[in-house]
Amino acid sequence: MFLGIDLGGTNIKVGCLDSQLALIYKISQATNADMGPDVVVDKICETVDMLLSENGLTMDIIEGVGLGAPGPAKIEEGIVISAPNLPQFKNIPIRRIIHERLAKPTVFENDANAACWGEYVAGAGKGVRDMMFFTLGTGIGGGIISNGELIHGFSDNAAELGHMIIHRDGRPCACGQQGCVEAYASAGATAKRATEAVEAGAKSSLKKKLKENGEITCKDVFGHYAAGDRLATKIAEGTSSALGLLCVNLLHITGPQRIVFAGGMIAAGDILLERIRHHFRQHIWPLKEEPLEICFATLGGDAGIIGTAALALHEYERNL
Amino acid sequence: MFLGIDLGGTNIKVGCLDSQLALIYKISQATNADMGPDVVVDKICETVDMLLSENGLTMDIIEGVGLGAPGPAKIEEGIVISAPNLPQFKNIPIRRIIHERLAKPTVFENDANAACWGEYVAGAGKGVRDMMFFTLGTGIGGGIISNGELIHGFSDNAAELGHMIIHRDGRPCACGQQGCVEAYASAGATAKRATEAVEAGAKSSLKKKLKENGEITCKDVFGHYAAGDRLATKIAEGTSSALGLLCVNLLHITGPQRIVFAGGMIAAGDILLERIRHHFRQHIWPLKEEPLEICFATLGGDAGIIGTAALALHEYERNL
Repeated sequence: MFLGIDLGGTNIKVGCLDSQLALIYKISQATNADMGPDVVVDKICETVDMLLSENGLTMDIIEGVGLGAPGPAKIEEGIVISAPNLPQFKNIPIRRIIHERLAKPTVFENDANAACWGEYVAGAGKGVRDMMFFTLGTGIGGGIISNGELIHGFSDNAAELGHMIIHRDGRPCACGQQGCVEAYASAGATAKRATEAVEAGAKSSLKKKLKENGEITCKDVFGHYAAGDRLATKIAEGTSSALGLLCVNLLHITGPQRIVFAGGMIAAGDILLERIRHHFRQHIWPLKEEPLEICFATLGGDAGIIGTAALALHEYERNL
Repeated sequence: MFLGIDLGGTNIKVGCLDSQLALIYKISQATNADMGPDVVVDKICETVDMLLSENGLTMDIIEGVGLGAPGPAKIEEGIVISAPNLPQFKNIPIRRIIHERLAKPTVFENDANAACWGEYVAGAGKGVRDMMFFTLGTGIGGGIISNGELIHGFSDNAAELGHMIIHRDGRPCACGQQGCVEAYASAGATAKRATEAVEAGAKSSLKKKLKENGEITCKDVFGHYAAGDRLATKIAEGTSSALGLLCVNLLHITGPQRIVFAGGMIAAGDILLERIRHHFRQHIWPLKEEPLEICFATLGGDAGIIGTAALALHEYERNL
């Protein structure tokens, strides 16, 4: 069996996979990120122990461990350089630490890549060799599988797919650039664009939401879009059109067979998926046929633990 | 030794490399593309024979052959699906044909990827594992090396880097899309944007060029830019800024260590390179340091024959 550890700013999730990539057991506990790396490491080990003992297992049956964490990081060394959601993690060699504590071969991957790998081996990416993966949440994260392997790039910074500039000198992005796709099409940006428009006086059924709840969420936007509100339609179309354009550009770069969208925003459902596909078709090279499947992720919140455990299995098989 | 064959619409170039990737002999002949595949294949074999006999060699010392041709193509099968510059090539299994004629292991690659591989192993890409490559000519072609291998993508259509959309609903591109980087920053588009502006009445020293020569070339634009002409400056800045933005986006996707520009337009020299670097720095994520080297190719017109021969060597070593 293989353990997958998904270290997030809020929760530590641990899963146990068999060699067929079936998720047998899983558990989740609060990270206590603000208490610093030592406490978080203890918490990880405690969560692993809890998962094993609750299910009558011991470490003896574990062949390898996969660990995912937010970045930027040095992937091969398994060092978290810094992470906004893990504030005291500065150059923490988390892979080595966990390897020493659990005494099992341990591989490290950044969280978005780990979730991408999970979908690739056991979710919406099954059966393809070339895939791109997006998480649509507060920001936009990504992962790229090319010819069956994750792309890391020279500085382990590849697949920062939310920070492709699609509008030169456009909306400011949290990263400091202008016009990033994240500044238009993340759940956060979708909510923000709607809020700005309502506050600027646009007529919309969303106005009531803002008054009642003090905020407009991305979910509100897609709900009111489905109900036919004109502003919500404009905002949601802006989001899906930016994502469709992104698909066009990425098809011309690494040539994926399938693009998989994940994250909270996909709760918007078929209406979002259909519009992304529509805008993709509107923008793509019309002079030749380019097959591309655009779909939603299927593993939900388990993608990270499945992906990290599967990476541990991948490494194990590589070393056989 | 290894033979590299660079089949273009105008010329067939053949080169002979030793196992240290030194280009020992080369030769070039007219393709006679309009006479169809049979004649072109004969011409290729004749050119190979000529290279060998002129230098007192025989096929015995050739361990493998690399063949590059314009696409779209099926890379592994070595089939040219169609090629604007080779008008009668429709689903021609050129790799198999050349393999049978020359009786040597033969690998196939599309021309831009082959030139990319040439620069990677023996030119401006030496010493890196992650590189992107652009040819700036009439259009913009590209190649991507990730972790030491070319990226082909699912349909062998990866690295169509000129067709990234940088301006939504922007200038029409020959591919049928709108707002492609090729529609702004190729040599062809640079000349065209300048011509359009002059014809629309813009004041410029380029006006005389248009009158005298009946056209404005990309070379003219960069020449008049260097001399301080205002319109030429605006056009050239538009070109280099689109290329700088492209570098930003690609850094966030496959994370190259080095981006190499090739093709006729790099004759514009340091002024172009400096401006691309400038616009890259203007647009890049300012919140973290991201090292990226931007430079010009060094192999000129030999990149294709060096790249194809080097791919034959790469395949030979893989099979050892």
